[in-house]
Amino acid sequence: MRTLFDALGPTRAEREELYKWFHRHPETAFTEYETSRRIGEELSALGLSPVSVGTTGKVAVLANGEGPVVMMRADFDALPCAEESGKDYSADPQLGRMHACGHDLHTTALLGAVRALVENLDAWRGTFIALFQPAEEIGQGASEMVAAGLTEKVPHPDVVLGQHVFSTLPGGAVGARRGPALSTTTQLRVVIHGRGGHGSMPHTTIDPVVIAGAVIGRIQTIVSRELEPGTFGVVTVGSVHAGDAPNTVADSATLRLSTRAYDEDVDARLLASVERIVRAECAAAGAEREPEFTVEGRGPLTTNDVAVTDAVMGSFRSAFGEEGVHAPGRWTGSEDFSNIPRAFGAPYCFWALGGFSDWENAPSNHSPQFAPDLQPSLDRGTEAILAAAAPWLIR
Amino acid sequence: MRTLFDALGPTRAEREELYKWFHRHPETAFTEYETSRRIGEELSALGLSPVSVGTTGKVAVLANGEGPVVMMRADFDALPCAEESGKDYSADPQLGRMHACGHDLHTTALLGAVRALVENLDAWRGTFIALFQPAEEIGQGASEMVAAGLTEKVPHPDVVLGQHVFSTLPGGAVGARRGPALSTTTQLRVVIHGRGGHGSMPHTTIDPVVIAGAVIGRIQTIVSRELEPGTFGVVTVGSVHAGDAPNTVADSATLRLSTRAYDEDVDARLLASVERIVRAECAAAGAEREPEFTVEGRGPLTTNDVAVTDAVMGSFRSAFGEEGVHAPGRWTGSEDFSNIPRAFGAPYCFWALGGFSDWENAPSNHSPQFAPDLQPSLDRGTEAILAAAAPWLIR
Amino acid sequence: MRTLFDALGPTRAEREELYKWFHRHPETAFTEYETSRRIGEELSALGLSPVSVGTTGKVAVLANGEGPVVMMRADFDALPCAEESGKDYSADPQLGRMHACGHDLHTTALLGAVRALVENLDAWRGTFIALFQPAEEIGQGASEMVAAGLTEKVPHPDVVLGQHVFSTLPGGAVGARRGPALSTTTQLRVVIHGRGGHGSMPHTTIDPVVIAGAVIGRIQTIVSRELEPGTFGVVTVGSVHAGDAPNTVADSATLRLSTRAYDEDVDARLLASVERIVRAECAAAGAEREPEFTVEGRGPLTTNDVAVTDAVMGSFRSAFGEEGVHAPGRWTGSEDFSNIPRAFGAPYCFWALGGFSDWENAPSNHSPQFAPDLQPSLDRGTEAILAAAAPWLIR
Amino acid sequence: MRTLFDALGPTRAEREELYKWFHRHPETAFTEYETSRRIGEELSALGLSPVSVGTTGKVAVLANGEGPVVMMRADFDALPCAEESGKDYSADPQLGRMHACGHDLHTTALLGAVRALVENLDAWRGTFIALFQPAEEIGQGASEMVAAGLTEKVPHPDVVLGQHVFSTLPGGAVGARRGPALSTTTQLRVVIHGRGGHGSMPHTTIDPVVIAGAVIGRIQTIVSRELEPGTFGVVTVGSVHAGDAPNTVADSATLRLSTRAYDEDVDARLLASVERIVRAECAAAGAEREPEFTVEGRGPLTTNDVAVTDAVMGSFRSAFGEEGVHAPGRWTGSEDFSNIPRAFGAPYCFWALGGFSDWENAPSNHSPQFAPDLQPSLDRGTEAILAAAAPWLIR
Repeated sequence: MRTLFDALGPTRAEREELYKWFHRHPETAFTEYETSRRIGEELSALGLSPVSVGTTGKVAVLANGEGPVVMMRADFDALPCAEESGKDYSADPQLGRMHACGHDLHTTALLGAVRALVENLDAWRGTFIALFQPAEEIGQGASEMVAAGLTEKVPHPDVVLGQHVFSTLPGGAVGARRGPALSTTTQLRVVIHGRGGHGSMPHTTIDPVVIAGAVIGRIQTIVSRELEPGTFGVVTVGSVHAGDAPNTVADSATLRLSTRAYDEDVDARLLASVERIVRAECAAAGAEREPEFTVEGRGPLTTNDVAVTDAVMGSFRSAFGEEGVHAPGRWTGSEDFSNIPRAFGAPYCFWALGGFSDWENAPSNHSPQFAPDLQPSLDRGTEAILAAAAPWLIR
Repeated sequence: MRTLFDALGPTRAEREELYKWFHRHPETAFTEYETSRRIGEELSALGLSPVSVGTTGKVAVLANGEGPVVMMRADFDALPCAEESGKDYSADPQLGRMHACGHDLHTTALLGAVRALVENLDAWRGTFIALFQPAEEIGQGASEMVAAGLTEKVPHPDVVLGQHVFSTLPGGAVGARRGPALSTTTQLRVVIHGRGGHGSMPHTTIDPVVIAGAVIGRIQTIVSRELEPGTFGVVTVGSVHAGDAPNTVADSATLRLSTRAYDEDVDARLLASVERIVRAECAAAGAEREPEFTVEGRGPLTTNDVAVTDAVMGSFRSAFGEEGVHAPGRWTGSEDFSNIPRAFGAPYCFWALGGFSDWENAPSNHSPQFAPDLQPSLDRGTEAILAAAAPWLIR
Repeated sequence: MRTLFDALGPTRAEREELYKWFHRHPETAFTEYETSRRIGEELSALGLSPVSVGTTGKVAVLANGEGPVVMMRADFDALPCAEESGKDYSADPQLGRMHACGHDLHTTALLGAVRALVENLDAWRGTFIALFQPAEEIGQGASEMVAAGLTEKVPHPDVVLGQHVFSTLPGGAVGARRGPALSTTTQLRVVIHGRGGHGSMPHTTIDPVVIAGAVIGRIQTIVSRELEPGTFGVVTVGSVHAGDAPNTVADSATLRLSTRAYDEDVDARLLASVERIVRAECAAAGAEREPEFTVEGRGPLTTNDVAVTDAVMGSFRSAFGEEGVHAPGRWTGSEDFSNIPRAFGAPYCFWALGGFSDWENAPSNHSPQFAPDLQPSLDRGTEAILAAAAPWLIR
Repeated sequence: MRTLFDALGPTRAEREELYKWFHRHPETAFTEYETSRRIGEELSALGLSPVSVGTTGKVAVLANGEGPVVMMRADFDALPCAEESGKDYSADPQLGRMHACGHDLHTTALLGAVRALVENLDAWRGTFIALFQPAEEIGQGASEMVAAGLTEKVPHPDVVLGQHVFSTLPGGAVGARRGPALSTTTQLRVVIHGRGGHGSMPHTTIDPVVIAGAVIGRIQTIVSRELEPGTFGVVTVGSVHAGDAPNTVADSATLRLSTRAYDEDVDARLLASVERIVRAECAAAGAEREPEFTVEGRGPLTTNDVAVTDAVMGSFRSAFGEEGVHAPGRWTGSEDFSNIPRAFGAPYCFWALGGFSDWENAPSNHSPQFAPDLQPSLDRGTEAILAAAAPWLIR
């Protein structure tokens, strides 16, 4: 492991440049063409033969003799918001897209780890599969790779690993939680149909903006009154859009919301309550047309395998010392990561990486200000992959 | 007047084509470049010398000897919504813009009336000024023409006329109301600042969508509780926009709303109450930043001059018979038309034109289904201009 | 008339004492036993033979030869609120009841007018019927008197008169409006059924307080969005009651509300919308039991007869001069008064009396601070009855 | 212990009658005069000398030689709701008060245990203090007994015990949780000041019912948006009262609410947010007077001592077998019980008793249908006291 870590020093400047390139080229779910192309080029430059899986997914297999098969997954899509990080490598705010969730760091770290492994074949044995996944933010990228035949295209892994950079643990620290680690999520689009008209004649209309306002308010009661107190559950209305002019009543309003839970029954209850409330609030307004509900994405429960997690955490302690390891609680977020090990029937571990030295004041993931400290985040994210794989690959 | 009316028959087909051209080329406020260019071409083809006033405004003066000076105004901007009229001359819905308020008809009718006057100079005497105004929908076009020096560029009118096609009176009927006819309006943009973050961590955010929902609901109490019952007053939240993703709490939400009243004090009260409520609802959420308020447009009270209106209505009765004249109530809508006569200190009359034979089931103005019957609307709209001007111009 | 007016001076002190007695003995709808008894005593003391009609109603007939029959109605019930007038003749606030709508003044004025008529039989001729009605505040007293056989018990009146003291016109002024003068009203009780439980276990309950809150908010949209702007219509939720403890979720919540309109269709729409909203908000909460709706009272439209009103107003002008007469607009309030003339098929006039010299700052009717100036209100209210009856009774 | 248990058979009928007597005589906080008197009589009949502490509290000390001092507390106040249990020993629903939280069972069980101890002095040694506390429901009874000098009036206990009957564990089962067992609670009264007036003139009023509705809705966002997901926290608006008539706008509205948390900081946050929201919603309505906040009661965190709880649970297992013991989670409710041991600085254990054989369908505590099965609840509740005290008292 030490050999592999030592290999990172000389590549640091190049890896930082690569990271900045990804950061400046944010692409949202399933449109990550440039990003995917660049990943492919980097892998090819290392002598690997990357395979495309699905729209923009890439996988490369590095076989190095007998031994266990470890798959590491990194995601690479960005979010549709204008960057306000103020970094000199900030994406152009005009793009309206940014890496506000650190996927660029995940991908750069995985490419860095691959390079260290390729250049130090003597230091390990077995097979390392680097998997680059699109469209995590909409919860569809992992499923698409599976649907596109992932399990036929690469060896069956003995273990699948993944990581995520967060602002909720100390900068540079890493840690994974045994068992349920990330929540389920469902992303729902709701279209409320009113009846449009002139803004001065409300009596000839059924105002979808008023319905939307009532829905937003009433949805708050799901968590406040319908969940058992202390049960984890979230309903966030992330976006609401209706109308284009101040003096016209729109025909419809569109809400996009996401639910979160650590229990499938709770998630089902949240969704059923959302639907019940939306239908009732439309009825309260006398709406003539039923609202529409479309599931835009789902994230399964992420449940770390106990043995794998213990092995990974043990390796982290050896590599980074106790002070470099953090015992995280459950994260409130969700991931579609586990769809990949689930497709193989393989055990998995997904860990967190702290991205900010001043983490207690750091902007949260998905904020337009989100931008991890370049270092030690990038090096530590790369080392963490090597350390996590070590129990299986290091001789 | 009969001569002038008779002149319309031969030009009908050309006028209908022109109308369809305008209808298929909708352009929103202050971007009506093609529309303005076409108006200019049509006026030039008639031998007139149109003058540009402001971004896209046009004025043409037709002097025909001694006599009173009559100004007729038509507006020509479209609205930002996708047409659903199903007409064979519908604008492409992909444009996301349409003539949902009939301004294309106003403009075609005025061009038709100019042509009839140009081609029948013997039938009248005096001066007719045709004024084509942009950006009525945002309440800024008339003011911009005034600011751009309108009163310096054309003769001072003795009377100013204007018309609007509506779905609220019988098709082909015309009518004007003495005194207050159209309400004041104020168009207000409100930006609510929360604090964004990940949708699974609401406790780290201040959710602007929840604030917006509360504001929309609470604003309803202005009309229901603060206005004296029976007082005309409207507050419409025409648009609300916040967030781009279902799993992210946005940083801010933007509401665009319009108020209406027949009394400046009432309008002031409506606006003051909107501001009070928005500030309080932001405070209820613990928002760290004050909301922002920007007036996007204002429409003054439209008050028809009694003598002018009596003359116009008398001429309508002569021209169209009692059955062709409708005594309208006050319209709930607003217009920036009166900024033009006000700039000249001239008396004015603004009348309504019925656009739908099945008017009781017609879509209201600003609806994506709005499209007046081609005829008799177009002919009657043209005749109405000639009839309204007759008391001053017909020998 | 002058003779009758002059007769009021000597009785002023006694009438003021009587008024204060009524004021200190407020009794709410259908429990006005003491009030009714006292009215009976006063009438008997004048030599009349008062008849009981319904629970607490009283009527006395004063026949004075040939001539028209005039009926004057006064109501006498109080309201369930604790007096805060600070008057030395205030009712005990502990009672929780007060004459916050001036019915004590109406009754004292009518008793005073009867006395003047009884003591000056030479000054007039015909028949005067003094009718004292209970339970106006709940809109049921007039109907009850009719149901109890009123029309069988007294002569058929040629005209029916009534008055009300308000804080919305100058003190001492009187005035009536031809045609529609007072709105319709419907008083509705709504019971919302949730499911009670311990306040710490909301997930086991369906919280009726939350439903009630949503209903109150959403009901505001009826006036703000469903009524044509400028149309008179009011929905007031006057009371809401749910739960007895801070730590228990109640089983149900009760709202009592009233609607007002100048048009039966509008009233029907208001009520239909209230019901639609309540049902939908119960559905939004997943309520297992339908809400209940009970009409508690109805007030019909009060439409003053034009000829009667002109006669009354003419007499007012003669008696009090132009400065003592006020031309009121429509009042937003409602009355069940007209059920009485309607039962007889008689024309009627209902006028307003100003109760406050500083009327622009006066507390509104139904406020706990409401208490008219003792004088000139009491004298003028008495004179107004005599003046209004004069066109029929004075020789 | 067996001796003591055996002593319960012969007294069963009398204990059941006593329970029914308490059930039929519900008295709310600090008005439990009859209940307190009856407890005193029962204790005196056993030869004890009960001492009054505070308004209605009672304590009796049973000294039986050397040995540890055990204090057992039972509460005895009822709730202000009309009983709907349908039991033949139901309280009269007309009373509007009932034992909807089982305090009558707690008290009867403690009196039964005292009787068993008094009649079997050979079976144990040491001192048993029976403490009967009022006003638990408003969170003030324990504090009042402490303020009234409790610690001066009885020996210092080595351990303090308490129990509560619930519908959330199997009937007859008992169990306690080490550490935090019951939440903190704060009971808050909020008075919202509007401006009253006639229901037909909303523009002259500031409607406190509308403010209350908005507050109720907005308060839901505290749990849904301000608490970290999965954190235990509750805000229940248990009661809302405003207005007495459907046609009058009230002057004020009163909300009574309770918060719950397992963390003092969370409780403080809940309360601060309630206050912030109430103030803002009053401001949104333009209220002229600040709302008022009064803390009506507080319940501290109940944290069972680990060693005491282990001893009690061990004794429960011996006495009732594994199947008779239930390992409860944290209860969402709150208790002021711990103010008593806290005053003495003594360790404590508070356990749950299952009151319903069909517990999964049982009405929750505080429901008007709440009424535990008479047996085995009463016997088991009595036995549980003896078993819990056994580790200290049984020879």
